[in-house]
Amino acid sequence: MPGPEFSIRRRVQFAETDMAGIAHFSNYFRWMEEVEHAFFRSLGMSVVMRHGDGDITWPRVSVSCDYSGPVRFEDELDLRLRVAKVGGKSLVFEVDVMKGGERVALGKMTSVCCTLENGTMRSVTIPAEIRAKLESGRASP
Amino acid sequence: MPGPEFSIRRRVQFAETDMAGIAHFSNYFRWMEEVEHAFFRSLGMSVVMRHGDGDITWPRVSVSCDYSGPVRFEDELDLRLRVAKVGGKSLVFEVDVMKGGERVALGKMTSVCCTLENGTMRSVTIPAEIRAKLESGRASP
Amino acid sequence: MPGPEFSIRRRVQFAETDMAGIAHFSNYFRWMEEVEHAFFRSLGMSVVMRHGDGDITWPRVSVSCDYSGPVRFEDELDLRLRVAKVGGKSLVFEVDVMKGGERVALGKMTSVCCTLENGTMRSVTIPAEIRAKLESGRASP
Amino acid sequence: MPGPEFSIRRRVQFAETDMAGIAHFSNYFRWMEEVEHAFFRSLGMSVVMRHGDGDITWPRVSVSCDYSGPVRFEDELDLRLRVAKVGGKSLVFEVDVMKGGERVALGKMTSVCCTLENGTMRSVTIPAEIRAKLESGRASP
Repeated sequence: MPGPEFSIRRRVQFAETDMAGIAHFSNYFRWMEEVEHAFFRSLGMSVVMRHGDGDITWPRVSVSCDYSGPVRFEDELDLRLRVAKVGGKSLVFEVDVMKGGERVALGKMTSVCCTLENGTMRSVTIPAEIRAKLESGRASP
Repeated sequence: MPGPEFSIRRRVQFAETDMAGIAHFSNYFRWMEEVEHAFFRSLGMSVVMRHGDGDITWPRVSVSCDYSGPVRFEDELDLRLRVAKVGGKSLVFEVDVMKGGERVALGKMTSVCCTLENGTMRSVTIPAEIRAKLESGRASP
Repeated sequence: MPGPEFSIRRRVQFAETDMAGIAHFSNYFRWMEEVEHAFFRSLGMSVVMRHGDGDITWPRVSVSCDYSGPVRFEDELDLRLRVAKVGGKSLVFEVDVMKGGERVALGKMTSVCCTLENGTMRSVTIPAEIRAKLESGRASP
Repeated sequence: MPGPEFSIRRRVQFAETDMAGIAHFSNYFRWMEEVEHAFFRSLGMSVVMRHGDGDITWPRVSVSCDYSGPVRFEDELDLRLRVAKVGGKSLVFEVDVMKGGERVALGKMTSVCCTLENGTMRSVTIPAEIRAKLESGRASP
Protein backbone atom coordinates (compact mmCIF):
# COMPACT_ATOMS: atom_id res chain seq x y z
CA MET A 1 0.00 0.00 0.00
CA PRO A 2 -0.71 2.57 -1.35
CA GLY A 3 -2.12 0.41 -4.09
CA PRO A 4 -3.04 1.28 -7.63
CA GLU A 5 -5.72 3.83 -8.32
CA PHE A 6 -9.41 3.61 -9.06
CA SER A 7 -11.02 6.51 -10.85
CA ILE A 8 -14.39 7.94 -11.89
CA ARG A 9 -15.25 11.04 -13.89
CA ARG A 10 -17.73 13.49 -12.41
CA ARG A 11 -19.09 16.79 -13.68
CA VAL A 12 -19.62 19.73 -11.28
CA GLN A 13 -23.35 20.43 -11.01
CA PHE A 14 -25.01 23.84 -10.74
CA ALA A 15 -26.44 23.13 -7.29
CA GLU A 16 -22.89 22.43 -6.08
CA THR A 17 -21.72 25.98 -6.81
CA ASP A 18 -22.07 28.91 -4.44
CA MET A 19 -22.35 32.67 -4.82
CA ALA A 20 -18.55 32.96 -5.15
CA GLY A 21 -18.99 31.15 -8.47
CA ILE A 22 -17.09 28.01 -7.46
CA ALA A 23 -18.01 24.61 -6.08
CA HIS A 24 -18.70 24.77 -2.35
CA PHE A 25 -15.88 23.13 -0.39
CA SER A 26 -18.22 20.76 1.47
CA ASN A 27 -19.17 19.01 -1.78
CA TYR A 28 -15.67 17.59 -2.20
CA PHE A 29 -16.44 15.23 0.67
CA ARG A 30 -19.50 13.95 -1.17
CA TRP A 31 -17.40 13.43 -4.29
CA MET A 32 -14.77 11.54 -2.26
CA GLU A 33 -17.54 9.32 -0.97
CA GLU A 34 -18.92 8.77 -4.48
CA VAL A 35 -15.63 7.39 -5.78
CA GLU A 36 -15.20 5.32 -2.61
CA HIS A 37 -18.60 3.71 -3.08
CA ALA A 38 -17.94 3.13 -6.79
CA PHE A 39 -14.71 1.40 -5.68
CA PHE A 40 -16.67 -0.85 -3.31
CA ARG A 41 -19.07 -1.73 -6.13
CA SER A 42 -16.15 -2.50 -8.45
CA LEU A 43 -15.08 -5.13 -5.90
CA GLY A 44 -18.57 -6.65 -5.78
CA MET A 45 -19.33 -5.04 -2.42
CA SER A 46 -21.44 -2.20 -1.11
CA VAL A 47 -20.54 0.26 1.58
CA VAL A 48 -23.70 -0.89 3.38
CA MET A 49 -23.93 -4.66 3.23
CA ARG A 50 -25.32 -7.58 5.14
CA HIS A 51 -22.71 -9.55 7.00
CA GLY A 52 -23.74 -12.32 9.37
CA ASP A 53 -26.69 -11.08 11.44
CA GLY A 54 -26.34 -7.37 10.85
CA ASP A 55 -25.16 -4.68 8.50
CA ILE A 56 -21.58 -3.59 8.05
CA THR A 57 -21.17 0.17 7.74
CA TRP A 58 -18.15 2.52 7.76
CA PRO A 59 -18.62 5.71 9.81
CA ARG A 60 -15.90 8.33 9.42
CA VAL A 61 -13.51 9.05 12.24
CA SER A 62 -11.36 11.62 10.48
CA VAL A 63 -11.51 13.40 7.14
CA SER A 64 -9.60 16.24 5.56
CA CYS A 65 -9.24 18.07 2.28
CA ASP A 66 -6.54 20.40 0.93
CA TYR A 67 -7.63 22.69 -1.90
CA SER A 68 -5.14 24.03 -4.43
CA GLY A 69 -7.46 25.56 -7.02
CA PRO A 70 -11.14 26.30 -7.63
CA VAL A 71 -13.52 24.15 -9.66
CA ARG A 72 -16.50 25.59 -11.47
CA PHE A 73 -19.87 24.63 -12.95
CA GLU A 74 -19.59 21.99 -15.68
CA ASP A 75 -15.93 21.26 -14.99
CA GLU A 76 -15.18 17.60 -15.53
CA LEU A 77 -13.28 16.13 -12.61
CA ASP A 78 -11.39 12.89 -12.33
CA LEU A 79 -11.65 11.46 -8.86
CA ARG A 80 -8.72 9.13 -8.24
CA LEU A 81 -8.92 6.94 -5.18
CA ARG A 82 -6.09 5.07 -3.47
CA VAL A 83 -6.37 2.62 -0.58
CA ALA A 84 -3.77 4.20 1.70
CA LYS A 85 -4.12 1.74 4.58
CA VAL A 86 -6.18 -1.26 5.66
CA GLY A 87 -5.79 -1.41 9.43
CA GLY A 88 -7.29 -3.86 11.93
CA LYS A 89 -10.59 -2.03 12.16
CA SER A 90 -9.92 1.06 10.09
CA LEU A 91 -9.55 1.96 6.47
CA VAL A 92 -7.85 4.99 4.94
CA PHE A 93 -8.57 6.30 1.46
CA GLU A 94 -6.90 9.17 -0.37
CA VAL A 95 -8.56 10.91 -3.29
CA ASP A 96 -6.95 13.18 -5.85
CA VAL A 97 -9.44 15.59 -7.40
CA MET A 98 -8.04 16.20 -10.90
CA LYS A 99 -9.11 18.88 -13.38
CA GLY A 100 -7.55 18.93 -16.84
CA GLY A 101 -4.70 16.72 -15.68
CA GLU A 102 -3.85 18.82 -12.61
CA ARG A 103 -4.63 18.05 -9.01
CA VAL A 104 -6.92 20.71 -7.55
CA ALA A 105 -7.61 18.98 -4.23
CA LEU A 106 -6.37 16.11 -2.10
CA GLY A 107 -8.82 14.42 0.23
CA LYS A 108 -8.34 11.82 2.94
CA MET A 109 -10.92 9.76 4.79
CA THR A 110 -10.43 7.38 7.71
CA SER A 111 -13.37 5.11 8.43
CA VAL A 112 -13.98 2.39 10.98
CA CYS A 113 -15.65 -0.91 10.25
CA CYS A 114 -18.83 -1.17 12.31
CA THR A 115 -21.80 -3.44 12.68
CA LEU A 116 -25.15 -1.70 12.70
CA GLU A 117 -27.91 -3.52 14.58
CA ASN A 118 -31.14 -1.84 15.67
CA GLY A 119 -29.58 1.55 15.20
CA THR A 120 -26.53 0.77 17.33
CA MET A 121 -23.03 0.88 15.84
CA ARG A 122 -20.15 -1.15 17.20
CA SER A 123 -16.61 -1.20 15.78
CA VAL A 124 -15.35 -4.61 14.68
CA THR A 125 -12.28 -6.13 13.05
CA ILE A 126 -12.62 -5.89 9.29
CA PRO A 127 -13.95 -9.33 8.18
CA ALA A 128 -11.26 -11.35 6.34
CA GLU A 129 -13.25 -11.61 3.15
CA ILE A 130 -13.77 -7.83 2.95
CA ARG A 131 -10.11 -7.20 3.82
CA ALA A 132 -8.98 -9.49 1.02
CA LYS A 133 -11.03 -7.56 -1.50
CA LEU A 134 -9.86 -4.16 -0.26
CA GLU A 135 -6.25 -5.31 -0.44
CA SER A 136 -6.69 -6.76 -3.92
CA GLY A 137 -6.38 -3.21 -5.14
CA ARG A 138 -7.75 -1.92 -8.34
CA ALA A 139 -10.73 -3.20 -10.23
CA SER A 140 -12.30 -1.84 -13.36
CA PRO A 141 -15.07 0.75 -12.78
CA MET B 1 -58.95 24.38 8.01
CA PRO B 2 -56.75 26.09 7.00
CA GLY B 3 -55.90 26.63 10.62
CA PRO B 4 -53.79 29.31 12.19
CA GLU B 5 -50.14 29.61 11.32
CA PHE B 6 -46.96 28.34 12.85
CA SER B 7 -43.77 30.16 12.06
CA ILE B 8 -39.98 29.96 12.42
CA ARG B 9 -37.26 32.38 11.37
CA ARG B 10 -34.40 31.05 9.25
CA ARG B 11 -31.36 32.75 7.78
CA VAL B 12 -30.15 31.86 4.27
CA GLN B 13 -26.76 30.16 4.53
CA PHE B 14 -23.80 30.56 2.16
CA ALA B 15 -23.85 26.89 1.11
CA GLU B 16 -27.48 27.36 0.05
CA THR B 17 -26.58 29.93 -2.60
CA ASP B 18 -25.53 29.12 -6.15
CA MET B 19 -23.40 30.84 -8.79
CA ALA B 20 -26.37 33.01 -9.82
CA GLY B 21 -25.99 34.66 -6.40
CA ILE B 22 -29.34 33.47 -5.02
CA ALA B 23 -30.54 30.56 -2.92
CA HIS B 24 -30.88 27.40 -5.00
CA PHE B 25 -34.53 26.52 -5.58
CA SER B 26 -34.17 22.99 -4.18
CA ASN B 27 -33.36 24.37 -0.73
CA TYR B 28 -36.86 25.77 -0.28
CA PHE B 29 -38.09 22.20 0.12
CA ARG B 30 -35.63 21.66 2.95
CA TRP B 31 -36.84 24.87 4.60
CA MET B 32 -40.46 23.77 4.22
CA GLU B 33 -39.52 20.53 5.93
CA GLU B 34 -37.72 22.38 8.72
CA VAL B 35 -40.80 24.39 9.68
CA GLU B 36 -42.98 21.27 9.35
CA HIS B 37 -40.75 19.37 11.78
CA ALA B 38 -40.62 22.33 14.18
CA PHE B 39 -44.43 22.28 14.05
CA PHE B 40 -44.48 18.57 14.96
CA ARG B 41 -42.13 19.27 17.88
CA SER B 42 -44.34 22.14 19.02
CA LEU B 43 -47.16 19.57 19.35
CA GLY B 44 -45.00 17.21 21.38
CA MET B 45 -44.47 14.91 18.41
CA SER B 46 -41.68 14.06 16.00
CA VAL B 47 -41.97 13.40 12.31
CA VAL B 48 -40.33 10.04 13.01
CA MET B 49 -41.87 8.49 16.08
CA ARG B 50 -42.59 5.14 17.65
CA HIS B 51 -46.21 4.12 17.42
CA GLY B 52 -47.24 0.65 18.52
CA ASP B 53 -44.73 -1.86 17.15
CA GLY B 54 -43.12 0.31 14.49
CA ASP B 55 -42.23 3.79 13.42
CA ILE B 56 -44.61 6.29 11.89
CA THR B 57 -43.10 8.27 9.05
CA TRP B 58 -44.51 10.64 6.40
CA PRO B 59 -43.16 10.15 2.87
CA ARG B 60 -44.09 12.82 0.33
CA VAL B 61 -46.51 12.04 -2.46
CA SER B 62 -46.62 15.48 -4.01
CA VAL B 63 -44.78 18.74 -3.46
CA SER B 64 -44.64 22.07 -5.26
CA CYS B 65 -43.23 25.54 -4.91
CA ASP B 66 -44.02 28.83 -6.66
CA TYR B 67 -41.27 31.45 -6.55
CA SER B 68 -42.06 35.15 -6.78
CA GLY B 69 -38.71 36.70 -5.90
CA PRO B 70 -35.12 35.73 -5.14
CA VAL B 71 -33.59 35.31 -1.71
CA ARG B 72 -29.93 35.89 -1.01
CA PHE B 73 -27.17 35.04 1.45
CA GLU B 74 -27.94 36.20 5.00
CA ASP B 75 -31.55 37.11 4.21
CA GLU B 76 -33.77 36.39 7.17
CA LEU B 77 -36.83 34.41 6.16
CA ASP B 78 -40.03 33.77 8.04
CA LEU B 79 -41.40 30.33 7.23
CA ARG B 80 -45.14 30.31 7.93
CA LEU B 81 -46.80 26.92 7.93
CA ARG B 82 -50.52 26.17 7.68
CA VAL B 83 -52.19 22.77 8.00
CA ALA B 84 -54.23 22.88 4.80
CA LYS B 85 -55.86 19.46 5.15
CA VAL B 86 -55.83 16.42 7.42
CA GLY B 87 -57.21 13.57 5.28
CA GLY B 88 -57.76 9.92 6.15
CA LYS B 89 -54.18 8.93 5.46
CA SER B 90 -52.75 12.13 4.05
CA LEU B 91 -51.69 15.51 5.31
CA VAL B 92 -51.29 18.76 3.38
CA PHE B 93 -49.13 21.66 4.54
CA GLU B 94 -48.70 25.04 2.92
CA VAL B 95 -45.72 27.25 3.67
CA ASP B 96 -45.33 30.95 2.94
CA VAL B 97 -41.69 31.96 2.61
CA MET B 98 -41.64 35.59 3.75
CA LYS B 99 -38.83 38.12 3.38
CA GLY B 100 -39.21 41.57 4.89
CA GLY B 101 -42.96 41.09 5.23
CA GLU B 102 -43.48 40.00 1.61
CA ARG B 103 -44.14 36.50 0.36
CA VAL B 104 -41.34 35.38 -1.95
CA ALA B 105 -42.45 31.77 -2.32
CA LEU B 106 -45.42 29.51 -1.64
CA GLY B 107 -44.77 25.84 -1.00
CA LYS B 108 -47.10 22.89 -0.66
CA MET B 109 -46.39 19.36 0.57
CA THR B 110 -48.70 16.36 0.62
CA SER B 111 -47.50 13.47 2.75
CA VAL B 112 -48.95 10.06 3.56
CA CYS B 113 -48.90 8.49 7.01
CA CYS B 114 -46.89 5.26 6.86
CA THR B 115 -45.56 2.64 9.19
CA LEU B 116 -41.92 1.75 8.70
CA GLU B 117 -40.96 -1.77 9.77
CA ASN B 118 -37.72 -3.48 8.69
CA GLY B 119 -37.31 -0.98 5.90
CA THR B 120 -40.82 -1.50 4.49
CA MET B 121 -43.31 1.37 4.35
CA ARG B 122 -47.05 0.83 4.40
CA SER B 123 -49.66 3.59 4.33
CA VAL B 124 -52.06 3.65 7.29
CA THR B 125 -54.94 5.76 8.58
CA ILE B 126 -53.55 8.61 10.64
CA PRO B 127 -53.77 7.44 14.28
CA ALA B 128 -56.52 9.30 16.22
CA GLU B 129 -54.12 10.75 18.75
CA ILE B 130 -51.87 12.21 16.06
CA ARG B 131 -54.86 13.52 14.11
CA ALA B 132 -56.18 15.30 17.19
CA LYS B 133 -52.89 17.08 17.66
CA LEU B 134 -52.58 18.07 14.01
CA GLU B 135 -56.11 19.45 14.07
CA SER B 136 -55.53 21.36 17.28
CA GLY B 137 -53.76 23.92 15.15
CA ARG B 138 -51.16 26.28 16.36
CA ALA B 139 -48.78 25.78 19.20
CA SER B 140 -45.99 28.01 20.35
CA PRO B 141 -42.61 27.31 18.69
CA MET C 1 -44.48 19.76 -28.26
CA PRO C 2 -44.02 17.70 -26.14
CA GLY C 3 -41.00 16.76 -28.19
CA PRO C 4 -38.94 13.62 -28.01
CA GLU C 5 -37.11 12.69 -24.87
CA PHE C 6 -33.60 13.24 -23.66
CA SER C 7 -32.28 10.92 -20.99
CA ILE C 8 -29.38 10.38 -18.60
CA ARG C 9 -28.66 7.58 -16.14
CA ARG C 10 -27.91 8.53 -12.53
CA ARG C 11 -27.14 6.40 -9.48
CA VAL C 12 -28.58 7.32 -6.07
CA GLN C 13 -25.72 8.33 -3.77
CA PHE C 14 -25.41 7.58 -0.05
CA ALA C 15 -25.48 11.25 0.93
CA GLU C 16 -28.83 11.56 -0.85
CA THR C 17 -30.53 9.06 1.46
CA ASP C 18 -32.12 9.94 4.79
CA MET C 19 -32.81 8.06 8.01
CA ALA C 20 -36.00 6.56 6.52
CA GLY C 21 -33.64 4.63 4.22
CA ILE C 22 -34.80 6.29 1.00
CA ALA C 23 -33.62 9.22 -1.12
CA HIS C 24 -34.71 12.53 0.38
CA PHE C 25 -37.50 14.10 -1.69
CA SER C 26 -35.61 17.39 -2.16
CA ASN C 27 -32.89 15.64 -4.17
CA TYR C 28 -35.29 14.87 -7.04
CA PHE C 29 -35.19 18.57 -7.91
CA ARG C 30 -31.41 18.43 -8.18
CA TRP C 31 -31.70 15.39 -10.43
CA MET C 32 -34.27 17.16 -12.61
CA GLU C 33 -31.83 20.03 -12.94
CA GLU C 34 -28.97 17.67 -13.81
CA VAL C 35 -30.82 16.20 -16.79
CA GLU C 36 -31.96 19.68 -17.83
CA HIS C 37 -28.38 20.95 -17.87
CA ALA C 38 -27.16 17.86 -19.71
CA PHE C 39 -29.89 18.61 -22.29
CA PHE C 40 -28.60 22.18 -22.68
CA ARG C 41 -25.08 20.84 -23.17
CA SER C 42 -26.34 18.35 -25.77
CA LEU C 43 -27.59 21.37 -27.75
CA GLY C 44 -24.22 23.11 -27.50
CA MET C 45 -25.50 25.52 -24.83
CA SER C 46 -25.10 26.00 -21.12
CA VAL C 47 -27.75 26.98 -18.64
CA VAL C 48 -25.51 29.94 -17.75
CA MET C 49 -24.14 31.52 -20.90
CA ARG C 50 -22.92 34.82 -22.25
CA HIS C 51 -25.40 36.53 -24.53
CA GLY C 52 -24.71 40.04 -25.76
CA ASP C 53 -23.47 42.12 -22.84
CA GLY C 54 -24.59 39.91 -19.98
CA ASP C 55 -25.37 36.39 -18.88
CA ILE C 56 -28.55 34.50 -19.63
CA THR C 57 -29.85 32.50 -16.70
CA TRP C 58 -33.11 30.63 -15.98
CA PRO C 59 -34.54 31.10 -12.49
CA ARG C 60 -37.45 28.86 -11.53
CA VAL C 61 -40.94 30.28 -11.16
CA SER C 62 -42.75 27.05 -10.40
CA VAL C 63 -41.67 23.47 -9.76
CA SER C 64 -43.45 20.32 -8.62
CA CYS C 65 -42.87 16.64 -8.15
CA ASP C 66 -45.24 13.69 -7.71
CA TYR C 67 -43.75 10.61 -6.08
CA SER C 68 -45.14 7.14 -6.75
CA GLY C 69 -42.49 4.95 -5.15
CA PRO C 70 -39.29 5.16 -3.12
CA VAL C 71 -35.77 5.03 -4.48
CA ARG C 72 -32.85 3.74 -2.46
CA PHE C 73 -29.07 3.86 -2.23
CA GLU C 74 -27.35 2.60 -5.39
CA ASP C 75 -30.58 2.44 -7.42
CA GLU C 76 -29.90 3.35 -11.03
CA LEU C 77 -32.38 5.92 -12.27
CA ASP C 78 -33.16 7.00 -15.80
CA LEU C 79 -34.04 10.68 -15.91
CA ARG C 80 -36.14 11.34 -19.01
CA LEU C 81 -36.67 14.97 -19.92
CA ARG C 82 -39.26 16.41 -22.27
CA VAL C 83 -39.57 20.03 -23.41
CA ALA C 84 -43.24 20.55 -22.55
CA LYS C 85 -43.48 24.18 -23.66
CA VAL C 86 -41.33 26.99 -25.04
CA GLY C 87 -43.25 30.18 -24.26
CA GLY C 88 -42.34 33.79 -24.98
CA LYS C 89 -40.16 34.17 -21.90
CA SER C 90 -40.74 30.86 -20.16
CA LEU C 91 -39.75 27.27 -20.58
CA VAL C 92 -41.41 24.15 -19.18
CA PHE C 93 -39.66 20.82 -18.72
CA GLU C 94 -41.11 17.54 -17.52
CA VAL C 95 -38.93 14.78 -16.14
CA ASP C 96 -39.86 11.13 -15.64
CA VAL C 97 -37.75 9.50 -12.94
CA MET C 98 -37.60 5.84 -14.00
CA LYS C 99 -36.39 2.87 -11.96
CA GLY C 100 -36.23 -0.57 -13.58
CA GLY C 101 -38.50 0.59 -16.38
CA GLU C 102 -41.19 2.02 -14.09
CA ARG C 103 -41.85 5.66 -13.38
CA VAL C 104 -41.31 6.42 -9.69
CA ALA C 105 -41.68 10.21 -9.93
CA LEU C 106 -42.84 12.91 -12.32
CA GLY C 107 -41.26 16.34 -12.03
CA LYS C 108 -42.10 19.64 -13.67
CA MET C 109 -40.10 22.86 -13.79
CA THR C 110 -41.10 26.24 -15.22
CA SER C 111 -38.25 28.69 -15.68
CA VAL C 112 -38.06 32.23 -17.01
CA CYS C 113 -35.35 33.51 -19.31
CA CYS C 114 -33.45 36.31 -17.55
CA THR C 115 -30.42 38.45 -18.10
CA LEU C 116 -28.07 38.70 -15.15
CA GLU C 117 -26.00 41.88 -14.96
CA ASN C 118 -24.20 43.03 -11.80
CA GLY C 119 -26.32 40.70 -9.72
CA THR C 120 -29.63 41.99 -11.11
CA MET C 121 -32.00 39.65 -12.97
CA ARG C 122 -34.47 40.87 -15.56
CA SER C 123 -36.84 38.63 -17.55
CA VAL C 124 -36.45 38.80 -21.32
CA THR C 125 -37.93 37.18 -24.42
CA ILE C 126 -36.05 33.97 -25.15
CA PRO C 127 -33.44 34.88 -27.81
CA ALA C 128 -34.34 33.41 -31.24
CA GLU C 129 -31.18 31.38 -31.49
CA ILE C 130 -31.76 29.72 -28.11
CA ARG C 131 -35.44 29.14 -28.91
CA ALA C 132 -34.53 27.40 -32.16
CA LYS C 133 -32.25 25.01 -30.35
CA LEU C 134 -34.75 24.25 -27.60
CA GLU C 135 -37.44 23.54 -30.19
CA SER C 136 -35.13 21.33 -32.21
CA GLY C 137 -35.85 18.63 -29.70
CA ARG C 138 -33.62 15.76 -28.89
CA ALA C 139 -29.91 15.59 -29.26
CA SER C 140 -27.57 12.81 -28.28
CA PRO C 141 -26.23 13.04 -24.69
CA MET D 1 -4.79 33.24 20.43
CA PRO D 2 -6.68 30.99 20.69
CA GLY D 3 -9.15 33.62 21.81
CA PRO D 4 -12.42 33.19 23.61
CA GLU D 5 -15.24 31.23 22.06
CA PHE D 6 -18.24 32.19 20.01
CA SER D 7 -21.15 29.77 19.95
CA ILE D 8 -24.47 29.07 18.25
CA ARG D 9 -27.04 26.35 18.83
CA ARG D 10 -28.15 24.28 15.86
CA ARG D 11 -30.61 21.40 15.58
CA VAL D 12 -29.87 18.44 13.29
CA GLN D 13 -32.38 18.42 10.45
CA PHE D 14 -33.98 15.37 8.84
CA ALA D 15 -32.45 16.07 5.42
CA GLU D 16 -29.01 16.00 7.09
CA THR D 17 -29.37 12.37 8.15
CA ASP D 18 -28.50 9.38 5.98
CA MET D 19 -29.65 5.77 5.78
CA ALA D 20 -27.30 4.81 8.64
CA GLY D 21 -29.59 6.91 10.85
CA ILE D 22 -26.98 9.56 11.68
CA ALA D 23 -26.03 12.97 10.31
CA HIS D 24 -23.94 12.64 7.16
CA PHE D 25 -20.31 13.58 7.85
CA SER D 26 -20.21 16.20 5.06
CA ASN D 27 -22.80 18.32 6.86
CA TYR D 28 -20.40 19.11 9.71
CA PHE D 29 -18.49 21.35 7.31
CA ARG D 30 -21.66 23.30 6.59
CA TRP D 31 -22.28 23.66 10.31
CA MET D 32 -18.71 24.86 10.84
CA GLU D 33 -19.31 27.46 8.16
CA GLU D 34 -22.60 28.53 9.75
CA VAL D 35 -20.97 29.37 13.06
CA GLU D 36 -18.07 31.07 11.26
CA HIS D 37 -20.47 33.32 9.35
CA ALA D 38 -22.48 34.06 12.49
CA PHE D 39 -19.16 35.07 14.09
CA PHE D 40 -18.44 37.47 11.21
CA ARG D 41 -21.91 38.97 11.60
CA SER D 42 -21.35 39.35 15.35
CA LEU D 43 -18.34 41.55 14.47
CA GLY D 44 -20.40 43.67 12.08
CA MET D 45 -18.89 41.99 9.05
CA SER D 46 -19.96 39.49 6.43
CA VAL D 47 -17.93 36.69 4.94
CA VAL D 48 -18.66 38.28 1.55
CA MET D 49 -18.22 42.03 1.78
CA ARG D 50 -17.32 45.04 -0.33
CA HIS D 51 -13.84 46.31 0.30
CA GLY D 52 -12.41 49.03 -1.90
CA ASP D 53 -13.23 48.23 -5.52
CA GLY D 54 -14.09 44.57 -5.15
CA ASP D 55 -15.41 41.89 -2.85
CA ILE D 56 -13.44 40.18 -0.13
CA THR D 57 -14.07 36.45 0.10
CA TRP D 58 -12.40 33.57 2.00
CA PRO D 59 -11.88 30.39 0.00
CA ARG D 60 -10.75 27.34 1.96
CA VAL D 61 -7.26 25.96 1.56
CA SER D 62 -7.48 23.18 4.11
CA VAL D 63 -10.24 21.73 6.25
CA SER D 64 -10.54 18.71 8.50
CA CYS D 65 -12.90 17.10 10.96
CA ASP D 66 -12.41 14.42 13.62
CA TYR D 67 -15.56 12.60 14.70
CA SER D 68 -15.86 11.03 18.14
CA GLY D 69 -19.54 10.14 18.24
CA PRO D 70 -22.66 10.16 16.08
CA VAL D 71 -25.33 12.85 16.04
CA ARG D 72 -28.93 12.13 15.14
CA PHE D 73 -32.11 13.81 13.91
CA GLU D 74 -33.31 16.55 16.25
CA ASP D 75 -30.16 16.54 18.38
CA GLU D 76 -29.34 20.03 19.57
CA LEU D 77 -25.72 20.88 18.91
CA ASP D 78 -23.62 23.70 20.28
CA LEU D 79 -21.12 24.89 17.71
CA ARG D 80 -18.22 26.58 19.51
CA LEU D 81 -15.81 28.52 17.33
CA ARG D 82 -12.33 29.71 18.23
CA VAL D 83 -10.06 31.94 16.16
CA ALA D 84 -6.96 29.73 16.22
CA LYS D 85 -4.74 31.98 14.10
CA VAL D 86 -4.86 35.23 12.14
CA GLY D 87 -1.92 35.03 9.71
CA GLY D 88 -0.78 37.49 7.06
CA LYS D 89 -3.25 36.30 4.47
CA SER D 90 -4.79 33.30 6.18
CA LEU D 91 -7.22 32.62 8.96
CA VAL D 92 -7.67 29.45 11.02
CA PHE D 93 -10.84 28.57 12.90
CA GLU D 94 -11.50 25.60 15.13
CA VAL D 95 -14.99 24.42 15.94
CA ASP D 96 -16.08 22.09 18.71
CA VAL D 97 -19.33 20.32 17.91
CA MET D 98 -20.92 19.72 21.32
CA LYS D 99 -23.87 17.49 22.17
CA GLY D 100 -25.20 17.40 25.71
CA GLY D 101 -22.02 18.98 27.01
CA GLU D 102 -19.68 16.51 25.29
CA ARG D 103 -17.58 17.13 22.23
CA VAL D 104 -18.63 14.83 19.39
CA ALA D 105 -16.48 16.40 16.67
CA LEU D 106 -13.60 18.83 16.23
CA GLY D 107 -13.37 20.76 12.99
CA LYS D 108 -10.67 23.00 11.58
CA MET D 109 -10.79 25.36 8.61
CA THR D 110 -7.97 27.38 7.06
CA SER D 111 -9.08 30.11 4.67
CA VAL D 112 -7.22 32.68 2.62
CA CYS D 113 -8.28 36.29 2.24
CA CYS D 114 -9.01 36.98 -1.44
CA THR D 115 -10.39 39.72 -3.59
CA LEU D 116 -13.02 38.65 -6.08
CA GLU D 117 -13.30 40.80 -9.19
CA ASN D 118 -15.07 39.66 -12.35
CA GLY D 119 -14.96 36.08 -11.21
CA THR D 120 -11.20 36.11 -10.53
CA MET D 121 -9.85 35.47 -7.03
CA ARG D 122 -6.51 36.81 -5.86
CA SER D 123 -5.06 36.32 -2.38
CA VAL D 124 -4.32 39.51 -0.44
CA THR D 125 -3.02 40.55 2.98
CA ILE D 126 -5.93 40.68 5.40
CA PRO D 127 -6.99 44.35 5.52
CA ALA D 128 -6.03 46.00 8.85
CA GLU D 129 -9.59 46.87 9.77
CA ILE D 130 -10.77 43.28 9.27
CA ARG D 131 -7.75 41.92 11.14
CA ALA D 132 -8.47 44.17 14.10
CA LYS D 133 -12.02 42.85 14.32
CA LEU D 134 -10.99 39.21 14.00
CA GLU D 135 -8.40 39.67 16.74
CA SER D 136 -10.84 41.44 19.02
CA GLY D 137 -12.16 38.02 19.90
CA ARG D 138 -15.59 37.28 21.08
CA ALA D 139 -18.69 39.29 20.44
CA SER D 140 -22.22 38.51 21.45
CA PRO D 141 -24.19 36.46 18.86
